[in-house]
Amino acid sequence: MKIEKTPAPLILPNPQDPRLTERVEGIDQAGARVEINVPVERPLTLYLNAQEIVTMMTIGDYPKYLALGYLLNQNMLKYDDVVTEVEYDDDLEVVVVRTEHHTDFEQKLKKRTQTSGCAQGTAFGDLMEAIETIALPKAELRTSWLYQMTQAINTTPSLYLEAGAIHGCVLCREGAPLCYTEDVGRHNAVDKIAGWIYCHDVDPADKILYTTGRLTSEMVIKTVRMGIPILVSRSGFTAWGVDLARQVGLTLVGRARGKRFIALSGEQRLVYDQSLDYVEEESARHRRKGEGRDD
Amino acid sequence: MKIEKTPAPLILPNPQDPRLTERVEGIDQAGARVEINVPVERPLTLYLNAQEIVTMMTIGDYPKYLALGYLLNQNMLKYDDVVTEVEYDDDLEVVVVRTEHHTDFEQKLKKRTQTSGCAQGTAFGDLMEAIETIALPKAELRTSWLYQMTQAINTTPSLYLEAGAIHGCVLCREGAPLCYTEDVGRHNAVDKIAGWIYCHDVDPADKILYTTGRLTSEMVIKTVRMGIPILVSRSGFTAWGVDLARQVGLTLVGRARGKRFIALSGEQRLVYDQSLDYVEEESARHRRKGEGRDD
Repeated sequence: MKIEKTPAPLILPNPQDPRLTERVEGIDQAGARVEINVPVERPLTLYLNAQEIVTMMTIGDYPKYLALGYLLNQNMLKYDDVVTEVEYDDDLEVVVVRTEHHTDFEQKLKKRTQTSGCAQGTAFGDLMEAIETIALPKAELRTSWLYQMTQAINTTPSLYLEAGAIHGCVLCREGAPLCYTEDVGRHNAVDKIAGWIYCHDVDPADKILYTTGRLTSEMVIKTVRMGIPILVSRSGFTAWGVDLARQVGLTLVGRARGKRFIALSGEQRLVYDQSLDYVEEESARHRRKGEGRDD
Repeated sequence: MKIEKTPAPLILPNPQDPRLTERVEGIDQAGARVEINVPVERPLTLYLNAQEIVTMMTIGDYPKYLALGYLLNQNMLKYDDVVTEVEYDDDLEVVVVRTEHHTDFEQKLKKRTQTSGCAQGTAFGDLMEAIETIALPKAELRTSWLYQMTQAINTTPSLYLEAGAIHGCVLCREGAPLCYTEDVGRHNAVDKIAGWIYCHDVDPADKILYTTGRLTSEMVIKTVRMGIPILVSRSGFTAWGVDLARQVGLTLVGRARGKRFIALSGEQRLVYDQSLDYVEEESARHRRKGEGRDD
């Protein structure tokens, strides 16, 4: 692409950013006045060239990563399309991705709208096609990395710890978080990761993706599209998510909490190098609620 | 509408239904083989007359409620449109809603696709318009009902307790669940409720809606569109959800777990009739994980 690729900055949540949370007043079970922090949620309308694509609900940080990641993950933008500009207008709540040539997707959309009108169906069919041809790299997931990673994620200051009601997605190398994004929708958090990878030419082959959300087909498809061989969650699985992961050889680890985890696909990448006697259970303070069942 | 309205059946989860979960084998933190139940997730393509609308990912129960509820909640179908038939094809994974006349939405979609191609943006703008004119009824939320309700929901056998990784949505009258739906997406669970209300001409004015998911703008908009005055969740809030609820006078209660809850909007409907000394905290077995923070 044409937009300049810059070295990857470390991305961590910024719970002190006043644009991302709001203080609201209410009443509790004893009838007492209480004040709590809640995450904001605002619309962001995405254009691909002159084509309006979607209005997303987002906390609003990293709009450019979100825009690029969304288009890449929906297969509306190919990795070899030339992006000339990504323009974000804070006041209008609009982000525009411009490409050198009209993309293949816009053609498809025009054809498709005659029978469908909605890009979501199309995109989904395309996504399935797009992952069938992908071969994920060899890699390993040492259990020591897994425990380091989850402990680092649970104890890093975040909007989640500050205001709750938010999902997180973290790209790690070995046990270390490199890009930790949060958003009201888990799909946004993962799309921001995809945008970050793209903008900074990050090699996905030795990375591990962590999500606080469930391991659904959508999450599996996006991980595979990014070329990341390992996906970890503290939440549970859906049957189709497992099925797809097995078809493409993605390592899928769920219910990762404290010492515990379950791998349902790609178990051959697991290396058991950590004695469980030295792994701590999660403290109550950092026990993040997943979307799945606890045991 | 023309399709016959029948008396409302009590809807409860059916965790024994073999079509809704799958048994999968994997490996745990000790390297031992384990087997767990996970919810299924399958595509369901929705047509409004000849127009393909969307492909939804769903567990697949109650496709007709889901189809009608989706269209109603997206404002693609009006409550006064005449529905002549809802046809579901299990093999094709297709559901078709037929109306007497082409709906207003199809017109809009045709116009819209020239600039957008995606129904999601349009629908969202329309939704905001649609709720501005709604006046929610007077109602009360006794705290005794709230505690009865949450205890009943937490202890009712469900796919959640069976397989995890699933959201639930429950329509209650006073303290009693009337329609308890589950799905891999929380938007599907609430859309099924909307379809159930529509098919059985249920009066929303004295009802309370409970969701396991967060209280986002989307959830608030859907509740208001259904005409339900009270929305309760065990999860947290987003700022825009709170904002919208206050604008339209919806009672919004979040973080409802054990004895605790917080109301951030419509507090005047609360009636504190329950002594907290007689409310039990949640047992570990039934402590459902919400999408929000616990405290």
